[in-house]
Amino acid sequence: MTMSGPDAAAIADGLARLRARRPRVHCITNSVAGNFTANVLLAAGAIPSMTINPEEMPDFIASADALLVNLGTLDPLCIEAIDVALGVASETGKPWVLDPVFVERSSPRLALARRLVTSRPTLIRSNQAELIAMTGGAGDGDDRDADTFALTSGAVVVRTGETDYITDGTNQLTVAGGHSHLTRVTAAGCAATALMAGFLAVHDDAVVGSAICLAMVAVAAEIAGEKTAGPGSFATAFIDSLYQLTPEQVANQARIS
Amino acid sequence: MTMSGPDAAAIADGLARLRARRPRVHCITNSVAGNFTANVLLAAGAIPSMTINPEEMPDFIASADALLVNLGTLDPLCIEAIDVALGVASETGKPWVLDPVFVERSSPRLALARRLVTSRPTLIRSNQAELIAMTGGAGDGDDRDADTFALTSGAVVVRTGETDYITDGTNQLTVAGGHSHLTRVTAAGCAATALMAGFLAVHDDAVVGSAICLAMVAVAAEIAGEKTAGPGSFATAFIDSLYQLTPEQVANQARIS
Amino acid sequence: MTMSGPDAAAIADGLARLRARRPRVHCITNSVAGNFTANVLLAAGAIPSMTINPEEMPDFIASADALLVNLGTLDPLCIEAIDVALGVASETGKPWVLDPVFVERSSPRLALARRLVTSRPTLIRSNQAELIAMTGGAGDGDDRDADTFALTSGAVVVRTGETDYITDGTNQLTVAGGHSHLTRVTAAGCAATALMAGFLAVHDDAVVGSAICLAMVAVAAEIAGEKTAGPGSFATAFIDSLYQLTPEQVANQARIS
Repeated sequence: MTMSGPDAAAIADGLARLRARRPRVHCITNSVAGNFTANVLLAAGAIPSMTINPEEMPDFIASADALLVNLGTLDPLCIEAIDVALGVASETGKPWVLDPVFVERSSPRLALARRLVTSRPTLIRSNQAELIAMTGGAGDGDDRDADTFALTSGAVVVRTGETDYITDGTNQLTVAGGHSHLTRVTAAGCAATALMAGFLAVHDDAVVGSAICLAMVAVAAEIAGEKTAGPGSFATAFIDSLYQLTPEQVANQARIS
Repeated sequence: MTMSGPDAAAIADGLARLRARRPRVHCITNSVAGNFTANVLLAAGAIPSMTINPEEMPDFIASADALLVNLGTLDPLCIEAIDVALGVASETGKPWVLDPVFVERSSPRLALARRLVTSRPTLIRSNQAELIAMTGGAGDGDDRDADTFALTSGAVVVRTGETDYITDGTNQLTVAGGHSHLTRVTAAGCAATALMAGFLAVHDDAVVGSAICLAMVAVAAEIAGEKTAGPGSFATAFIDSLYQLTPEQVANQARIS
Repeated sequence: MTMSGPDAAAIADGLARLRARRPRVHCITNSVAGNFTANVLLAAGAIPSMTINPEEMPDFIASADALLVNLGTLDPLCIEAIDVALGVASETGKPWVLDPVFVERSSPRLALARRLVTSRPTLIRSNQAELIAMTGGAGDGDDRDADTFALTSGAVVVRTGETDYITDGTNQLTVAGGHSHLTRVTAAGCAATALMAGFLAVHDDAVVGSAICLAMVAVAAEIAGEKTAGPGSFATAFIDSLYQLTPEQVANQARIS
């Protein structure tokens, strides 16, 4: 069953809440994505922190509103930090998002990602190739596979692509739009996923909250794409758009269904 | 007692010296800030190096003109590198700057930052929240707290904010100006602090040298802010301004008092 | 003996092949360069991956088309990753590029770089100071030193500078052009070297392949330099140019001889 998407007022309210509450998002992410991710969060209205020192995780997670775990450039210290962070997130009831980047290219990473799923992420983002890997390689990463993965994992699953598919196994939304340059800017997907963690901090319904986030990203990308002719200036304009977008603009241009 | 600020000729000379001498600034900084910090240093006229391999610290510090120690994303290797680097900086008499980012959010980091203060940094930069944490949480991070901290630490203390306050406990300067977008660009403060290390390398008086640096940053931000409408394009324009600014422009627009 | 450079059709074909095959380039690089390197590769048409987890190297290298080893910010984990990666690259016959950044400033790094040369890189890039260090400090890094280093190492040697010099010891090419702002953008050289690894993946002749790569970088820099007035906007425009450049444009503007 596909649920009806949030109406314009709900979309506008979702973004307004992010801007008003300025959630703190702690990001355990890869070194390539760190800077762009922090700038996306700041532009959109959230407050990033990025340390991966295991010893500091308790303090940072306890004072954060949401957690991102991105597997982009793993190392042993990073894995240790993730485990400490998830323990604190679980104790303190913080929402957290798993981004299993490139699991289809690394068996140790895939094994780690599957283990992390048992720590019950609030949301798992993956593209089609990552979803296929995460679900054992038997399926083809279609909507049904995403639904099944959501039901077995207990997480909301977001499959990103030309159209994003969001499912908790029972309720589904899709978000259309965006711009092809997003695939030519490194860490654009990582940063969008970090922003989803921010939206989960201010929105109780993870399906609706992540849909509003993805709509914000899509609308910002469309506006940036109209103004620019290459991925360098696109990335800069995308940050500007995230900052300038009003809740009403997102509500009017969003294509959630 | 507040000292009289540098006059226009002294300000212009301070920047001209940076451009002429191109000091080498070794930065032990966080992975989020590394790229932007290096680009700020290059644009302004300094030469960055950024390795955090403890084994390489002796060679890099010995051939550098100043050192930045930023606690942004600590890990055990980074801490080891800091200790080696400070030993070499002390032996070779290199100025060094401590940037205790986010100490108010992490008790292990705060403990480390306090320990590093005993190695006698030339300058400590902190915002109000970090200053409160560094001085034991009793004060409110006001001018008097900064003065006291300068006297007890032996360092010049720079409290950044809407107006920057610089003190060695006896002599004080303030620097006004800048642009609100600086707070929406990740690592802008980290990068400005790295540039302060560069100015200390070419200026004997750390109060005056850091004031000229902060004025340069403020003027560059003002120029960038006039041309741009969001933090993405602002960051790009800020780098351009640091590169294009003439000593005379900084001298004319600086608001040091 | 200087060989005759590739003609316009060969240059155009070299770039067209990169765009058509989209080689996967695994980069073991420093944290400062990671983001810009990934964006350069994506804009030009290659696909980056950047993890430095030793445990993941076998899978990532086996599924990559070329490997970059940049010594920019070494740490022990990075060194371990390099050794594992080179073992896999050797077994699977993948081309790899050594970028011995800043070896003239660190004796442990120089020792490592020299050891890595014995693992037979396909190509070694260095500027004049790095070449002098790599060849024992006796020479002055001139063309003859580069030729000798190529013959003794078995690698193609690229000495970057105002004019780039490419040699396998017997055949030589030079590439002129570019823009001075490239030296004011951190990691511009690191990123260009990563792109060379991408060209080696689609071009059997490493002298010609790297010349076409350097010509592409030079032409993109020239176009970017015409449009911009500082290193911030230059870096953005450079990414745009890499993306927009047609094979014919590179062929027409290239100055390979």
